[in-house]
Amino acid sequence: MNMDKKILLAHGSGGRLSHQLVEGLILPFLGNEILDRMDDSAVFELGGRIAFTTDSYVVNPIFFPGGNIGKLSVCGTVNDLAMSGARPLFLSLAFIIEEGFSLDDLSVITRSIKEVGQEAGVQIVTGDTKIVNRGSADRIFINTAGIGLIERDIDISGSNARVGDSILLSGNLGDHGIAVMSKREGLNFNLPVESDCAPLNSLVDDILSVSTDVHVLRDPTRGGLASSLNEIAQQSNVGIEIYEDKIPVDESVQSACEMLGFDALYVANEGKLTAFTAPHCSQDILDKMRLSEYGRNAQLIGKVTGEHPGRVIMRTRLGTNRIVDM
Amino acid sequence: MNMDKKILLAHGSGGRLSHQLVEGLILPFLGNEILDRMDDSAVFELGGRIAFTTDSYVVNPIFFPGGNIGKLSVCGTVNDLAMSGARPLFLSLAFIIEEGFSLDDLSVITRSIKEVGQEAGVQIVTGDTKIVNRGSADRIFINTAGIGLIERDIDISGSNARVGDSILLSGNLGDHGIAVMSKREGLNFNLPVESDCAPLNSLVDDILSVSTDVHVLRDPTRGGLASSLNEIAQQSNVGIEIYEDKIPVDESVQSACEMLGFDALYVANEGKLTAFTAPHCSQDILDKMRLSEYGRNAQLIGKVTGEHPGRVIMRTRLGTNRIVDM
Repeated sequence: MNMDKKILLAHGSGGRLSHQLVEGLILPFLGNEILDRMDDSAVFELGGRIAFTTDSYVVNPIFFPGGNIGKLSVCGTVNDLAMSGARPLFLSLAFIIEEGFSLDDLSVITRSIKEVGQEAGVQIVTGDTKIVNRGSADRIFINTAGIGLIERDIDISGSNARVGDSILLSGNLGDHGIAVMSKREGLNFNLPVESDCAPLNSLVDDILSVSTDVHVLRDPTRGGLASSLNEIAQQSNVGIEIYEDKIPVDESVQSACEMLGFDALYVANEGKLTAFTAPHCSQDILDKMRLSEYGRNAQLIGKVTGEHPGRVIMRTRLGTNRIVDM
Repeated sequence: MNMDKKILLAHGSGGRLSHQLVEGLILPFLGNEILDRMDDSAVFELGGRIAFTTDSYVVNPIFFPGGNIGKLSVCGTVNDLAMSGARPLFLSLAFIIEEGFSLDDLSVITRSIKEVGQEAGVQIVTGDTKIVNRGSADRIFINTAGIGLIERDIDISGSNARVGDSILLSGNLGDHGIAVMSKREGLNFNLPVESDCAPLNSLVDDILSVSTDVHVLRDPTRGGLASSLNEIAQQSNVGIEIYEDKIPVDESVQSACEMLGFDALYVANEGKLTAFTAPHCSQDILDKMRLSEYGRNAQLIGKVTGEHPGRVIMRTRLGTNRIVDM
């Protein structure tokens, strides 16, 4: 490929430059038997209970400590599939790129997509690239959609929380949001904060290998843990009680939050999950999670109660109760 | 829903306003049993040969004669599925919206998505909404991904064109591109040109009900018929011969093209397809296509030849041959 340094409008024309971009920069990283056919649709055999999800990624800055928009676009969709208990299999990948965007940056992003896709065991099987005029988009946006297969006899949903369930959290809150925000605002902390951006499907597999008595799985991304728990409380019409002293937050993240006036409960994560499990298996699941790279600091942070349905209450370190709003 | 007039950044926060937007404006139009669960993934039973595709829609202007970005985002993905011979079933829908965008416009777009989705027989089962800062996107971008099921014993691919195949075109070229361009540039023609934006899955079903000896289906969108035929010639390593006098172009589109210096062969369509069929069934298929709303002006426009593999040659009205480049 004659590698120009910048994306041109003609790269999105559907003509020769479009093909050069795909064949020179996308397929060498992401090619596989299905994608290489380059038809309008990917075609494959699949059967059973299928999970299907989509997310667009518009993160600013697109490169941040611990990841970039490409890694994020795979992890986010892999995780949404995993949260339904599905094994993620196939992803679509759609770029919207601003004219003038660096081809080197696109190459770094595409390489990240390849690497984390391999880690997660998913294939990119179909894609699209659109180029928009300078000023019509903020550098690059990515959309991925994903297809997974639910192979176990499970029924996991935000509406399935049951009174008595234990609530587990896989690790420290707020790393992603603070990493992105400090890069964007040019803030420096003593200890740099890295995004937790990671594919959680193997952690989910670990959880479900211990017990399938798991009722809810959710990754607290936008809006943080507070929003996820409120959604679940409302979807399931149950009360949720969490314990402030059990919620793990990294020290640097905590001081960044204090400096910026944030509450780590509301800050985005990209490599954490909360699991609502029957109480009888919660300790075994916790032990198993802690053996996993992405669950080392997992904690039991609360329980589901029949009181105050639709509401999340936190028992504070001072022993008082505080409503955790959406 | 307390209907503010404009999209705010907080509509994308994952918090209360996000939920109000989805529950007040999206679900009332698009809700169904799967989407209404509002989990991270849609879950459904499906089995067989599955087609999967994605496209982002960044059209400017977002409202144009004959359609809008919402209608386009359903038709485009439905058509990509149909071009693999699949019955389109499930769509994802992801909005990227600029802060300050009109909620009324969003409502019109969402209503169009509902209407054309119903016509095409597809359900929106999962979605995402991101809001970006004013100036970080051009009003609204939409991504859809789609899942369909290939129920017939067919093998349709851009790489399956065979020497001797008849090449059919479902109707007039260039309507979409000229409609969008004239709206964008503020041009007025004697007879206004409307986009051909339409779901083609029922036309494909008509074609395959006549014969499954169909080797290639493709909708000539970006880059027009010229780019599609060149792609097919290269994927299949065959020559393609088309006849200028058989290619239908509306009179207003033709004069707009002449005025603007375009060639209708390269102008985008959003409701046309080209079909490569075995010669023995091409007339029957053509007759059937002409009975359909979206195939009324279908024509046999050319054939596949063993000469000049990888190239598209047009026999002109003057009787000369012209290379149709990508």
